[in-house]
Amino acid sequence: MTTITPASAVALPPTTDAELEQLLSAAHTAAAPLAAFRPAERAGLLDAVADALDAAAGKLIPEAERETRLPGARLRGELKRTTFQLRLFGEVLRDGGYLDARIDHADAEWPMGAPRPDLRRLRVPLGPVVVFAASNFPFAFSVAGGDTASALAAGSPVLLKAHSGHPGLSRLSAEVVTSALRKAGAPDGTFALIAGTAAGAEALSDPRVKAGAFTGSIPGGRALFEIANSRPEPIPFFGELGSNNPAFVTEAAARERGAEIAQGFVSSFTMGAGQFCTKPGTLFVPVGYGMVEALREAALPPAAPLLNERIQSGYTDTLTNLQSNPRITTLAQGTGPLADPPGPTLLLTTAADMLAEPHALQTECFGPAAVVVTYDDEVHLPDLAETFEGQLTATIHGTDSCQVAALVKVLARKAGRVVWNQWPTGVSVTHAQQHGGPYPATTAVGSTSVGTAAIERFLRPVAYQGFPQHLLPEVLREDNPLRVPRLVDGRKGN
Amino acid sequence: MTTITPASAVALPPTTDAELEQLLSAAHTAAAPLAAFRPAERAGLLDAVADALDAAAGKLIPEAERETRLPGARLRGELKRTTFQLRLFGEVLRDGGYLDARIDHADAEWPMGAPRPDLRRLRVPLGPVVVFAASNFPFAFSVAGGDTASALAAGSPVLLKAHSGHPGLSRLSAEVVTSALRKAGAPDGTFALIAGTAAGAEALSDPRVKAGAFTGSIPGGRALFEIANSRPEPIPFFGELGSNNPAFVTEAAARERGAEIAQGFVSSFTMGAGQFCTKPGTLFVPVGYGMVEALREAALPPAAPLLNERIQSGYTDTLTNLQSNPRITTLAQGTGPLADPPGPTLLLTTAADMLAEPHALQTECFGPAAVVVTYDDEVHLPDLAETFEGQLTATIHGTDSCQVAALVKVLARKAGRVVWNQWPTGVSVTHAQQHGGPYPATTAVGSTSVGTAAIERFLRPVAYQGFPQHLLPEVLREDNPLRVPRLVDGRKGN
Repeated sequence: MTTITPASAVALPPTTDAELEQLLSAAHTAAAPLAAFRPAERAGLLDAVADALDAAAGKLIPEAERETRLPGARLRGELKRTTFQLRLFGEVLRDGGYLDARIDHADAEWPMGAPRPDLRRLRVPLGPVVVFAASNFPFAFSVAGGDTASALAAGSPVLLKAHSGHPGLSRLSAEVVTSALRKAGAPDGTFALIAGTAAGAEALSDPRVKAGAFTGSIPGGRALFEIANSRPEPIPFFGELGSNNPAFVTEAAARERGAEIAQGFVSSFTMGAGQFCTKPGTLFVPVGYGMVEALREAALPPAAPLLNERIQSGYTDTLTNLQSNPRITTLAQGTGPLADPPGPTLLLTTAADMLAEPHALQTECFGPAAVVVTYDDEVHLPDLAETFEGQLTATIHGTDSCQVAALVKVLARKAGRVVWNQWPTGVSVTHAQQHGGPYPATTAVGSTSVGTAAIERFLRPVAYQGFPQHLLPEVLREDNPLRVPRLVDGRKGN
Repeated sequence: MTTITPASAVALPPTTDAELEQLLSAAHTAAAPLAAFRPAERAGLLDAVADALDAAAGKLIPEAERETRLPGARLRGELKRTTFQLRLFGEVLRDGGYLDARIDHADAEWPMGAPRPDLRRLRVPLGPVVVFAASNFPFAFSVAGGDTASALAAGSPVLLKAHSGHPGLSRLSAEVVTSALRKAGAPDGTFALIAGTAAGAEALSDPRVKAGAFTGSIPGGRALFEIANSRPEPIPFFGELGSNNPAFVTEAAARERGAEIAQGFVSSFTMGAGQFCTKPGTLFVPVGYGMVEALREAALPPAAPLLNERIQSGYTDTLTNLQSNPRITTLAQGTGPLADPPGPTLLLTTAADMLAEPHALQTECFGPAAVVVTYDDEVHLPDLAETFEGQLTATIHGTDSCQVAALVKVLARKAGRVVWNQWPTGVSVTHAQQHGGPYPATTAVGSTSVGTAAIERFLRPVAYQGFPQHLLPEVLREDNPLRVPRLVDGRKGN
C-alpha cells in the first residue's frame, strides 16, 4: 500500500504515534463544541474554507500541476467544484432539512394501546471521522473534498489521511483549511492532516474515532472496512471502492447515431486519462450497425500522463493481463499503449465471451482503456447486465421507446446512478445526486459520497422523551427558533 | 447458541439445505415484483397482515401464553402494538415521504462550473432481508414484528429466522402472515419462516440476501454481524444487541419525590420480569436523601417466570457473578431470587466503585435485577455517564432547572433516546421514536428498529440521469402522479 510519489514531490513524513495521539485528542475535544454550533454558524465555517481555497488558487494550482501531472484547466475546474461543494453544504445547513427533525406530541389516545409520550428526534454528528483522500481528484476527493465537506457540515471533526500521490498539495491545502477554520472560530482540532498508511489504520482503530470515509481501490478499501468492523466498537465505514460503469447501446440508437455515440464514448473513457471512478469500462454495441467500425476509426486522444508511477504500472499490468485473455482482441490503440504516458486502448470481445467469463472481463482497468462487447440481439441485454456486480453508474444509449424498460430495471438494481443518453463521467454536485451503489461500488449501499445527501453518513438520530423546553436542543423546541423543516405529529410543518 | 425450548413447546424442525435453497430462490424471485408495487398498494399488504393477525388472536394468544410464560394481558397488548405498527407503516407508504424523492432539473448555469444534468433520485428496496426474531417480545419483535413490518414496507421480501423460544407461535404467526399476503396479492416468496441457527447463518451468507436484522444478545449479534461483513459482497446488518439503560436521579428530584421515583424505578426494572431491552439496569441516586432507604423498603413485585430455561440460567449466572463482586452488596430481594421463577433483586454499589470497575458493574443482567449506585455530589454525574458504552436509552429524573444540561449532553452522545422524568421501558411506536444507539446498543448507529424511520434500513438511493418521462419511476415523473413529497431543485414541493 505504499505509493511511489512523483519524482517532483517530497513525501510527507509519516505521522508519529505521539503526533497522532495529540491530533486524536484534539479532534475528540473539538467534537462537542463543533456539534454545538448552530447549523447556520457551521455554514459560515464552510464558506470561510471555500473562500480561503479560492484565494489560495495561485499557490494550489501550480503545486497540483507539478504533483499530479493533470492539466491546469482541469485542476482549476476541480477547485471550483470543490469550493462550490463546500458552499452548497452551507446551504444545506442553513435550510436545516438534513436534521430530519421530528416532533410527536404526547397523545393519550395514541392507538397503539398505550399513551404516546412527547418524543422529539433530530440528527446529531457522529464524532471524529477519518477521511482517506483519493489520488485522482487532488481537490474534489482529497483534503478539502466531498468527504471532508460533508463531515464538517455534519459537525464531525476530520482527521484527513493524505494521499501520498500529492503530498505537497495536501500540506498546502491542509494549511489553508486549518487556518481558515481557526480564523472563522472553529474549535482547535476541527481538522488535521495525517500521513502514512500506519497512521491512517491506527486512527481508524482509535476509540475516539466514530466513522471512516475512503475513496480508492478495492483491496485498500476492504482492508480498512475490516479494521472499522473488527474494533471493539465497530463504526460505519463509507468506502467507495471500484466500478466498471457499463454502458449499453440499443440497436435503434446505434442505427440513429452510432458514430456520435462512439465518439462520445471515446471522450468519456479517456477523460482525465481514464482515471475517473465513473469511467465507462465496458460498452455493449450491436453487431451489424457499424459501431465496431466507428470505434475502430474513432479519433483517440493523444497519450496523457497518469497520476503517478503506481497507477502507471497498475494500468499496464491490468491491460497486459486483459490483452492476454484469449477472449479479447485489440480494437484500437493510440501511440505507445504501454508507454508512459500511455496512448488509449480499446479492447473487443463478444457477448458470449462476457457471459462465459464476466469476472475477468469486467476487471476495472484504471486508466485510458475500455472493452467493447458486441451482441447479436438486444433481448439479451438484461442478462448481460445481470453479470455485473454493484456499480456506481450504468448507462444506456437508447431511443425514446419502451423497449429498454427491462434493462433499466436491472441496472437500477445494480447501480447507484443510471444514465440515459449521456455519459457517467462528470459527477454533478446536486441535491439529487447519488454516487454510491452495491458492493464493490461502496461498502455502505445506503450512502452517497457526492451530493447533499452525503452529509447523512456522519449523523445519527437521537430522541428526547418528555423533556422540558429549555433542556431541548433549539431545533426541537416548540417555537422552532431556527425555523427548520420538521415532521410534527407525522405531518410536514414547522 | 442453542436455546432450550420450553417443555410445553415442540421445536421446529431445522430448515434443510434443500428447503432453504427453495425459500431463498422464491425470495429472490419475489423481490422485483414486490418492489414494483406502488407504495399505497404495498400498504394494503401490511393492512391485510394486521387484520389477519387481529382475527387470529384467539389462536395466537393462548399459544403465546403456553410457550412464553408471559401473562395474557401483556400478550394481548403486544399483539395490538404489533398490528398497529403494521398499519402505521401503511400510513408511511401512503404518505410517500420515506422515498426521499428529489428532482434537480437540468441547469446550464449551475454554479459548479459545469451544466447540471436532469437528476432524479428516490429510495428503492434493498432486496431480500433475513430477520432474526427475538424471544422477549413474541409478537412485536418476532415473526410479524417491527423488522418484518419495516422490511415489507420497504418492499424487501423477508426470510424470518424463528426464535426457538416460541416455535409453535412462530409457526402459527407465519401461517397467518403468509396466508394474508397471498390473499392480498403479494408475490409468492414475499415471506417465509426458517428455523435453526445453521439455516439462519446460511441465509445471511447467501448472495441473494441483501440485509440482515437482529434483536438479541451481544455474542449472537456480533457473530452474525461478522458473517454479514465477511461475505464477498458485504451487506448491512442491523443488530440490536445490548444495553444497560442507566438512569440518573438528581439531588433536587430525590428531595422532591424520591419515594415516587424509587417506586417508578422498581416498576420499570421488573416490567416483563426485567426482560426488556430498555430495562433500566443502573440507577444513580444521591446519598442523604432517603432514596436508598426508599428502595430498600420498596414493594417488589412477586416472582414472575422468565421466558425460557436458557434465559433463566443466564440470569442466575449473571446475578450470581455480580453478587460475588466485592464492590456489590444486595440492597433488596424478593422471594427466591435465584429460583425459577426468580424474585427481583436490587444490588447496591457506590459511584467510586463504578468509576473503578465500570465494565463489570454495567454488565447487562437480562431479568429482574438492577444496580443502585450512590453518589455524593451530582457534579460527578457527567463523569459517571461517560463510563458507559453505547446505550439504547438513558434516563434522567431531575427538576426543571438548567443544572443537568451537561449530563443531558453526555447522555445524548451515549444513547439513542434520552428520557426525562419518565422510564425507558415501553417503547412507543411513533414517527419520532429512536430505538438504537452506538455499539453495543446496535451494530448500525445511524438506524432505528422502532418507529417509522425503521423503514430506512431496508432502502438504498438510486438516481436517474437524463431519463425520458415514461422510463422514470412514477414517483419521479414531472406530474408526480402519486403525489409524494419531493425536494425539487433544493426546495420542498411536489
